[in-house]
Amino acid sequence: MKQRIKTRFTEFFNVSHPIMLAPMDQISGGNLAAAVSRAGGLGMIGGGYGNREWLKTVFSETHDESVGVGFITWSLMRQPELVDFSLDQKPVAFMVSFGDSEIPVAAAKARNIPTIWQIQTLDMAKQALDAGVDVLVVQGQEAGGHGMSRGLISLLPAVRDLAGKDQIIVAAGGIADGRGLAGALSLGADGVMPGTRFWASKEANGSDAAKAQLVKARGDDTLRSKVFDIARGVDWPWHFTGRVVANQFSNQWHNNIDELQRDVETEQQRYLTSQMDDFNIRVVIGGECLDNIHSIDSAETIINNMVDEAANILERMVNYLVP
Amino acid sequence: MKQRIKTRFTEFFNVSHPIMLAPMDQISGGNLAAAVSRAGGLGMIGGGYGNREWLKTVFSETHDESVGVGFITWSLMRQPELVDFSLDQKPVAFMVSFGDSEIPVAAAKARNIPTIWQIQTLDMAKQALDAGVDVLVVQGQEAGGHGMSRGLISLLPAVRDLAGKDQIIVAAGGIADGRGLAGALSLGADGVMPGTRFWASKEANGSDAAKAQLVKARGDDTLRSKVFDIARGVDWPWHFTGRVVANQFSNQWHNNIDELQRDVETEQQRYLTSQMDDFNIRVVIGGECLDNIHSIDSAETIINNMVDEAANILERMVNYLVP
Repeated sequence: MKQRIKTRFTEFFNVSHPIMLAPMDQISGGNLAAAVSRAGGLGMIGGGYGNREWLKTVFSETHDESVGVGFITWSLMRQPELVDFSLDQKPVAFMVSFGDSEIPVAAAKARNIPTIWQIQTLDMAKQALDAGVDVLVVQGQEAGGHGMSRGLISLLPAVRDLAGKDQIIVAAGGIADGRGLAGALSLGADGVMPGTRFWASKEANGSDAAKAQLVKARGDDTLRSKVFDIARGVDWPWHFTGRVVANQFSNQWHNNIDELQRDVETEQQRYLTSQMDDFNIRVVIGGECLDNIHSIDSAETIINNMVDEAANILERMVNYLVP
Repeated sequence: MKQRIKTRFTEFFNVSHPIMLAPMDQISGGNLAAAVSRAGGLGMIGGGYGNREWLKTVFSETHDESVGVGFITWSLMRQPELVDFSLDQKPVAFMVSFGDSEIPVAAAKARNIPTIWQIQTLDMAKQALDAGVDVLVVQGQEAGGHGMSRGLISLLPAVRDLAGKDQIIVAAGGIADGRGLAGALSLGADGVMPGTRFWASKEANGSDAAKAQLVKARGDDTLRSKVFDIARGVDWPWHFTGRVVANQFSNQWHNNIDELQRDVETEQQRYLTSQMDDFNIRVVIGGECLDNIHSIDSAETIINNMVDEAANILERMVNYLVP
């Protein structure tokens, strides 16, 4: 690595690179979170829907490497005791997304643990800023997994204008390489939070067969859908959809949601009893950046490549100028 | 203006700025196209669905300023004689979008008129490259008006990788200021094609009342929908949706498309007989960048502000680097 990139994000978290791991449910376990932190980023454990046993296991897997943890708010708040349990693990950052997060954010702030709130609209950004969050993550619709409809390239500068110049802002969704990092900095971010790119890493939890699907699939093959939440019986608030790699199951039901809901017991049974590697039925979560993912790499390689490419771009941007 | 930005785009078209006007149907008339060209960008007439009388009028309004022209392919090809008619006007660029555009592109190439093909997916990019198009416009889902679902921040670098380093690529969708221009250059573009930002200009065709809606509305208020194509009786291919400012009419029908189609005659009548400035019913087209539009400005002011802001960003990007 020739050069490093310094931003408000790297200063605030005292890390080498303006890159944080998306706390992906199941996928971002202790190994991946620790690997990202060791490589100079901010590793984040995927607290997901909230599960005390899983959290105990994954925090122990980090072997005392500094990591943060992130949750799905609407699910976390059904078991609010997990907030204190998670904060007891002394995460270096506490992140929330998908729902009214004032209560867990206040709990983390009371313990002086840095808070991160991921938002998907300008209205949500205002709500998070009103709660005094330390870091805003602006998630575009390009992201794999749950999200909403706004595109990062316009939402990011709009949130910067709302938040003011001193707010730490991280861009998420569709970012898999140094061009995405440099682009995000140009648009007003202080760092990026790749998800899908780290899902396609050696340290991510998940089968090799599922990861092979990520390398094979393209951005055009993904879509935002309610199909797999219905098939898995997970009651996400209706306005959040999940970006996935389309397959036979989503092709059958994506435009027939009413019919799927009428047949829901049969189809849930079919989904949940299918083989784990039957990707005609089973969901593979992935974002639009899949076009830019060509191999399963270590978290360190992913970070170094991203920083090197971004540094090269940042260095030569001035060459576009003529007096 | 302190500095100019030089790219393959400015070299190819011999213009001062890497900014082209989106050829918006109705809105991008001769006055706006000429104003953009006079200000150093590439002005484009909105040929839209194709209408010989309108084309005659708007080309005459340019008063011999150099401008290009752009069409909606699927509609243009229902009246293929308009291709030659348009090329007879000696546009400095001939642009197509939304459909198989090999025939009109070949016609323009035969006359040595630069060709531009706007695409919305990676598959479409491949089709356009195979046709030997001079300039690819990569349109993200953030764009106002018709488009598809892919976000610009991931589609743009993917198209660059597909097209190779020498292809001229323009980014469209969600770009309204210098951050968008600088971001697009970071992501691999050679220029940008704002639409909504120029719709909110003094020279754009359209009522002051409609333009006032653009200043008032926010990105969160927009959505991609089929509603207004159905209400207006325009038979767009189903995979293209239109991004609009949501209103009472779209709120009523967006999630009830089947019902709208059953009531289509009544609702078309209601739509088409409503007052032009009844924005509870009438569509106002706009993209997600509406957050960044605060006033109706001249095309020249829009371009100068965009270039100045982008130049400032490009100049200071290197400051992020530490050895």
